[in-house]
Amino acid sequence: MLRSHNCGELKSTDINTTVALSGWVQKIRDKGFIIWVDIRDRYGITQLVFDEARTPKKVFDSARNLSREFVIQIKGQVIERESKNNELLTGAIEILVNELNILNPSEIPPFTIEDKTDGGEELRMKYRYLDIRRNTIRDNLIFRHKVTMEVRNYLNNQGFIDIETPYLIKSTPEGARDFIVPSRMNSGQFYALPQSPQTFKQLLMVGGMDRYFQIVKCFRDEDLRADRQPEFTQIDCEMSFVNQEDVLTQFEGLISHLILKIKNYKIDKFPKMTYDEAIKNYGSDKPDIRFGMKFGNITDKAKGKGFNVFDSEEIIVGFSIKKGASISRKEIDKWVDWIKKPQIGAKGLVWVKYNEDHTLKSSVDKFYTENDLIEWAKITKADSGDLIFILSGETKKTLKQLGELRLAIAEKNNLRNPDIFAPLWVTDFPLLEWNEEAKRYHAMHHPFTSPKKEDLGLLKSFPEKVRANAYDLVINGNEIGGGSIRIHDSKLQKEMFNLIGLSNKEAQEQFGFLLGAFKFGAPPHGGIAFGLDRLVTILGGEETIRDFIAFPKNNSGRDIMIDSPSMIEKSQLNELGLDLNKS
Amino acid sequence: MLRSHNCGELKSTDINTTVALSGWVQKIRDKGFIIWVDIRDRYGITQLVFDEARTPKKVFDSARNLSREFVIQIKGQVIERESKNNELLTGAIEILVNELNILNPSEIPPFTIEDKTDGGEELRMKYRYLDIRRNTIRDNLIFRHKVTMEVRNYLNNQGFIDIETPYLIKSTPEGARDFIVPSRMNSGQFYALPQSPQTFKQLLMVGGMDRYFQIVKCFRDEDLRADRQPEFTQIDCEMSFVNQEDVLTQFEGLISHLILKIKNYKIDKFPKMTYDEAIKNYGSDKPDIRFGMKFGNITDKAKGKGFNVFDSEEIIVGFSIKKGASISRKEIDKWVDWIKKPQIGAKGLVWVKYNEDHTLKSSVDKFYTENDLIEWAKITKADSGDLIFILSGETKKTLKQLGELRLAIAEKNNLRNPDIFAPLWVTDFPLLEWNEEAKRYHAMHHPFTSPKKEDLGLLKSFPEKVRANAYDLVINGNEIGGGSIRIHDSKLQKEMFNLIGLSNKEAQEQFGFLLGAFKFGAPPHGGIAFGLDRLVTILGGEETIRDFIAFPKNNSGRDIMIDSPSMIEKSQLNELGLDLNKS
Repeated sequence: MLRSHNCGELKSTDINTTVALSGWVQKIRDKGFIIWVDIRDRYGITQLVFDEARTPKKVFDSARNLSREFVIQIKGQVIERESKNNELLTGAIEILVNELNILNPSEIPPFTIEDKTDGGEELRMKYRYLDIRRNTIRDNLIFRHKVTMEVRNYLNNQGFIDIETPYLIKSTPEGARDFIVPSRMNSGQFYALPQSPQTFKQLLMVGGMDRYFQIVKCFRDEDLRADRQPEFTQIDCEMSFVNQEDVLTQFEGLISHLILKIKNYKIDKFPKMTYDEAIKNYGSDKPDIRFGMKFGNITDKAKGKGFNVFDSEEIIVGFSIKKGASISRKEIDKWVDWIKKPQIGAKGLVWVKYNEDHTLKSSVDKFYTENDLIEWAKITKADSGDLIFILSGETKKTLKQLGELRLAIAEKNNLRNPDIFAPLWVTDFPLLEWNEEAKRYHAMHHPFTSPKKEDLGLLKSFPEKVRANAYDLVINGNEIGGGSIRIHDSKLQKEMFNLIGLSNKEAQEQFGFLLGAFKFGAPPHGGIAFGLDRLVTILGGEETIRDFIAFPKNNSGRDIMIDSPSMIEKSQLNELGLDLNKS
Repeated sequence: MLRSHNCGELKSTDINTTVALSGWVQKIRDKGFIIWVDIRDRYGITQLVFDEARTPKKVFDSARNLSREFVIQIKGQVIERESKNNELLTGAIEILVNELNILNPSEIPPFTIEDKTDGGEELRMKYRYLDIRRNTIRDNLIFRHKVTMEVRNYLNNQGFIDIETPYLIKSTPEGARDFIVPSRMNSGQFYALPQSPQTFKQLLMVGGMDRYFQIVKCFRDEDLRADRQPEFTQIDCEMSFVNQEDVLTQFEGLISHLILKIKNYKIDKFPKMTYDEAIKNYGSDKPDIRFGMKFGNITDKAKGKGFNVFDSEEIIVGFSIKKGASISRKEIDKWVDWIKKPQIGAKGLVWVKYNEDHTLKSSVDKFYTENDLIEWAKITKADSGDLIFILSGETKKTLKQLGELRLAIAEKNNLRNPDIFAPLWVTDFPLLEWNEEAKRYHAMHHPFTSPKKEDLGLLKSFPEKVRANAYDLVINGNEIGGGSIRIHDSKLQKEMFNLIGLSNKEAQEQFGFLLGAFKFGAPPHGGIAFGLDRLVTILGGEETIRDFIAFPKNNSGRDIMIDSPSMIEKSQLNELGLDLNKS
């Protein structure tokens, strides 16, 4: 070993011992007759002293050649530090160096390796290996490691078996786009990378493995939204002989264990909310419930009073902002503009101030009496001192717009506190959703999700009304995981495939192995998958998943450090029986 | 939950309790008035009783419809079993059933779900989900899970951080063939699947992560030898500020911990052997040292005595077989034939019997005196009662042939005992090997392996003589892992790329990110990667890695269960800007 200790562990009890340290030069202070150098590694920072009077001349002169990010090995005596630094683990001591070995010099790095670096994101991604040296990214990666260790040990203790499923699988056009992988040994044929191990984990249940988990990479060749990656990691789980409640209890256990162990934050019981309630009350299927601002539907109270805008709309709905009555007209106008942005797309915003003196003032005073407004206040749970914001329009769209307004205001008012964890189960998702473009139903979760028994009768007549045994785990307004009780009956599975537009022949070609497996004693089963990247980001109290991925790709799916994807040699394509399409 | 207990846990202390069990019908014995049914799940087997006198009629009748592999749920009383079965965990009890619920019927499975099944390998691979129900495969998968949990916890305790590296990386023509992945968003460009996370783990070291591990899938689009898979799993590790001895000590710790924890088998210290010694003494760079039969070189003693065959050859080498003198001439002739097989390719085999009565008899008595033969016996460590086998020819080829003969004889004589674990470090591998076809050097491990300091002077003049800081871990004649101390110097790395035929431009294009990283303070580092599939197979005392992989591919790289790889739709290729090459 090129060290006897790491750079984060020497204490006053080590004084007078001889040590060897290795690490990077973090900082140099050259006072002429004395040079202080901070040496850094993953574990911490230790202060080195080169003293003209006490350090061998050759070593002292060599220290003068050091520069930021040089990798060095030193030997020396641990001595007491005159001005102790209590913020540093090693702040009680320093090392009087008598041997210095430059293991590798460094060019001046393109940005500073400091908590507050001067490097922009693109630059830091290009030199990711330098960015990882920064405390933030290093700590994030270690945090992620701790989370996965906890997950594995918890699930292992609960009898779950970690089983690897294949990465080279089969392309199925349903859902998002697959990455495909040409096979050289089977010319003209292709594997696909898994969007999830869904069918394989179900086959493991058919195989009697009973409880499965895997922390596994998944792949989607999709246009990337701001904070998505073409490859992402799932905590993938499946159980046999369970109903929905069993799955929720099991994984509520996992997540509260994690939050307790990692964040020392205790949560007793996760609340549950149906999809319909979530949409109705929060305008989102992943409501952030760290704060109130629950919607109140005032359609009945606001319609038919001569205000044309409201009279012609499907829904009129609002929420109240605590202590919002003091918000200035100027600021309210900003929200009116905000809601009209094309990304939100509302036509206008009605507001009601419920003043501290119990008077009411609104943007629609012309049409409504104070009593009307008091009715609205009751429904939106507004008290004196509060402000009510109201939107109207087509139901689905309006609820969504109001949901986004709610989040934006919460953000502005610092109600989205990253130190609070508010998990929530959202249940009873619709089984199908209509895709206007394709003119057919899509599976809202995936086509292996089972419909609720009591809704089975609607499958043919009103497919869109059928609720699924599907659930999402939401934390602080982020979808952290989702799952379902699966179909385990071959006939029902076929029916489901038909509903989403697969002919029997297509279903057989793509999923014949699953339909076949269901004929040999498939047990009732269900499971869940958590997005690990997002989970660790939320637990870490951060927002950008890229900060918790060692080597992330950018928004075009490029790894700009290794410059990939890239052209390949013609001979490689030839071997695969492929040509670039010139058209 | 559809059960109160699993099928492996009820004991006599549970007698008289009411329970619910779920599982598969393993066996039915219908005695007319009484029906016994064995119900099976991952945890065990429990005997159910349907008794005409005590079971509700409807339930009893329903039991008559059961068949193998039906999935059922039952409720009933735990009662004492008349004839106890001590071999069964639940052998003291049975369940008197009063409620039966058929959760899913089953067609007759294509092979029996028994330890000794009647299904051939192809059939079992097609219905892998049924094969997994068998004790063997189920236990293998659970065993693999236990091994990986131990590995993770051990390495975590040693300060290693589990860090995920990307799967969508960049194609580099060096070494084995990459699987490539066309990018839809970057038309005409390709990712590649990693053959190993080698460069990324090195960048993590440059990033100061100090100790990294990952259990990770790797990919090679190669013609598959008998027991290889296009996707395989590595335990991948890397450390900073270490020399070779540090790495060996660290991972000797891991492997002996595993063997102790998992197999309750204690190993004190792993022996070490240089590559040259291994080849010279065992004709293999992965010698099985569970038994002797070390080679003796008799070239000096056997040449120049008038035996033409020997006189003209480069090397004459043999080994002795304990108590082999009793082997019949007929059997010896079989070995003579064996060694001439095209796969082995030797021209002939010379034998010497050192009889119990101290007389000597050989196939070359015409040319050698008894004293000559006694000399040979000394060198090959043969005593009276033993047999000596001798090959001659070109050195490298002959040693290899003799190595294979040694293994075949050990196999035949049951010396390759799967209950013994004999690990061995093989060190000092050559840095390069000459590739006759490509007329250039290849890196023997990979081009990031560092040459031994003392051999640096030979790099230009005699590249093939340069030894590397490279090592393999061998257990029982299988290469379980390999690694090296890496190059961390940009200039030396460039030199290495040049040696294996990459121009500076090519090196920059393919590995520019690594060469760049080495300029910003790369620490000395090294590591190792273990083949998990092989490791668990060896630890499990088995031979076929497929038996330890949940969903393996066959020798043509096909998953015959899901029928992959397969054709994809023309539209998918179009989107990727690709055409099938018609030529």
